[in-house]
Amino acid sequence: MGELRKDPILGRWVIIATERSKRPGSFFKESGADQKTDPLKCPFCIGHESMTPPEIYSIRDPKTKADTPGWKVRVVPNKFPALGIDHPLERKGKGVFDKMTGFGAHEVVIETPDHERESKDQSIEEITSWISAIQFRADDLTKDKRFRYILIFKNKGFSAGASLSHPHHQIIATPVTPKRVKEELAGSLAYFKLKERCIFCDIIDQELSEGERIVYENDTFVSFCPYVSRFPYEIWVLPKKHIIDFYDSFMRSSINSFAEHLKIISQKLASILGDPEYNYIIHSSPNRFARPDYWKTIENDYHLHLELLPRLTRVAGFEWGTGFYINPVSPEQAAKELREAKIG
Amino acid sequence: MGELRKDPILGRWVIIATERSKRPGSFFKESGADQKTDPLKCPFCIGHESMTPPEIYSIRDPKTKADTPGWKVRVVPNKFPALGIDHPLERKGKGVFDKMTGFGAHEVVIETPDHERESKDQSIEEITSWISAIQFRADDLTKDKRFRYILIFKNKGFSAGASLSHPHHQIIATPVTPKRVKEELAGSLAYFKLKERCIFCDIIDQELSEGERIVYENDTFVSFCPYVSRFPYEIWVLPKKHIIDFYDSFMRSSINSFAEHLKIISQKLASILGDPEYNYIIHSSPNRFARPDYWKTIENDYHLHLELLPRLTRVAGFEWGTGFYINPVSPEQAAKELREAKIG
Repeated sequence: MGELRKDPILGRWVIIATERSKRPGSFFKESGADQKTDPLKCPFCIGHESMTPPEIYSIRDPKTKADTPGWKVRVVPNKFPALGIDHPLERKGKGVFDKMTGFGAHEVVIETPDHERESKDQSIEEITSWISAIQFRADDLTKDKRFRYILIFKNKGFSAGASLSHPHHQIIATPVTPKRVKEELAGSLAYFKLKERCIFCDIIDQELSEGERIVYENDTFVSFCPYVSRFPYEIWVLPKKHIIDFYDSFMRSSINSFAEHLKIISQKLASILGDPEYNYIIHSSPNRFARPDYWKTIENDYHLHLELLPRLTRVAGFEWGTGFYINPVSPEQAAKELREAKIG
Repeated sequence: MGELRKDPILGRWVIIATERSKRPGSFFKESGADQKTDPLKCPFCIGHESMTPPEIYSIRDPKTKADTPGWKVRVVPNKFPALGIDHPLERKGKGVFDKMTGFGAHEVVIETPDHERESKDQSIEEITSWISAIQFRADDLTKDKRFRYILIFKNKGFSAGASLSHPHHQIIATPVTPKRVKEELAGSLAYFKLKERCIFCDIIDQELSEGERIVYENDTFVSFCPYVSRFPYEIWVLPKKHIIDFYDSFMRSSINSFAEHLKIISQKLASILGDPEYNYIIHSSPNRFARPDYWKTIENDYHLHLELLPRLTRVAGFEWGTGFYINPVSPEQAAKELREAKIG
């Protein structure tokens, strides 16, 4: 098992996970070969349940047994985990450096038994099934107070980092609050101190009133290309109501409405960009049980959201050197195309 | 021309540069085709000088004219610039958002007239030529006080963001100090306040004393795989002497020694990884003329360095969501392989 190492200058942690070099396609090779997994060798396909570690959770026909066919959604530990729960959480110094054991959890949520059935092809009912499975697992992981943050994300396509093409999400529970989350919390807190309002709520108001970057809207959620889009066709999805985490009762009651956004966005992206590769990340608050005092202070100023980043452009020296991004497509243009995209 | 937009939560700027969608390969397509530029169509090749905007600087046979053959190194404006110098610097607000005109400079340093001659194949003399050209241009750009930062970087290979394969570097001058640079300055200042020592100097001491992550060392520079490497085979190059910027007189007097590191590193990477794609970024201090007071305070705590990031793994949802990285090869293992790599 690997270890966590902390950059003494930037405060960012790196997971040195040498086990992961054994997973399929761990090193990026630009080859002409089809980078989709062969269904015959796919550990996420129906009938291949023994190819994964034993399942943690599933939505399945009650007459069937765990780790056999009969499931609709299946949650399993990652076979090549970045972090593991079997390691006691220990922190140590080494000269100017800090390290920590590779303690954490790394789970995979298999969305469907069907190898090719992407979100755009799934019914709202199918999408709500895997969303509820993610909520169940994330909620369960928060009960372990050693986990400061539960990260939920999807990598779609080889360039987006997926080593298997079968539709799936990942959940990683970390013993530290991620740098990116801390920065967002600090930024939204600074705004709240100045204005006594949630910055995300203000952004939603402005986007709805200007309208030109809106992609889709229903009663409870809004999707738009953010004013400061880093990437062409970047899309954020936010609940209109001010809520801060993914397993809030509001999210449970409006799960259909959220599923509708995911389906429509993936259909619209496929329609105009030919089914692009992308990453999306659910930006939820840190674990309320791990840091109850901390959590109290962010209740007013943070706001749950999803960030979808299509992988159409390449991150290069400029981005690595500055933390800034060059986006060749204006979010206004991207949103217009996405709004007008014809979907089935 | 595009504009700069500031993220109101994270403070990061994004350049909306719609002109750049016209450049070759601006959208990433994973194709089996050879992604190297055809030399017959390459604007950086000898005899094709009219395909670029007029040259800003060159190292050439004094008997030859600008924009004709006879050059060894040639600096030209980027034909598809992210930022332009013809735009007055203006800042405006728009509700919760901030924007700025796309003011800046974007230059390309063509290392050699030879389409295929990578750093690993170049002589020390050739490498020192383009380093001195970069120093000359960066030094010249600092005289414009509107430029807060001069970023120097190289993208090698298609996945690393290079739209042309002919060996070149880029220089981008920005009207704001990049977020990533600010974070580094803040981190090293915090350490200096605690210890009254430069953190980079302390890291160099520790790396030299432990030895296991050293890749190459000569009198004036050291190259190592950093303890907190984000990527497999990541390499940093630092001057052993405490200096903070790239056009320091020390850099000018030890240019051969720096060139030797660049050549040896590129040879070692090619030897063990088959000429990988990479980005490297020169982390130099902000423009001393733009912010003289600011600059005074960083003189003790910042340290010039180069960060080389091989593009072997893919940045995915975990990295985007956390700002953390998962590295499947330990820096100790990577350094051992690089130290032992046989080079010509």
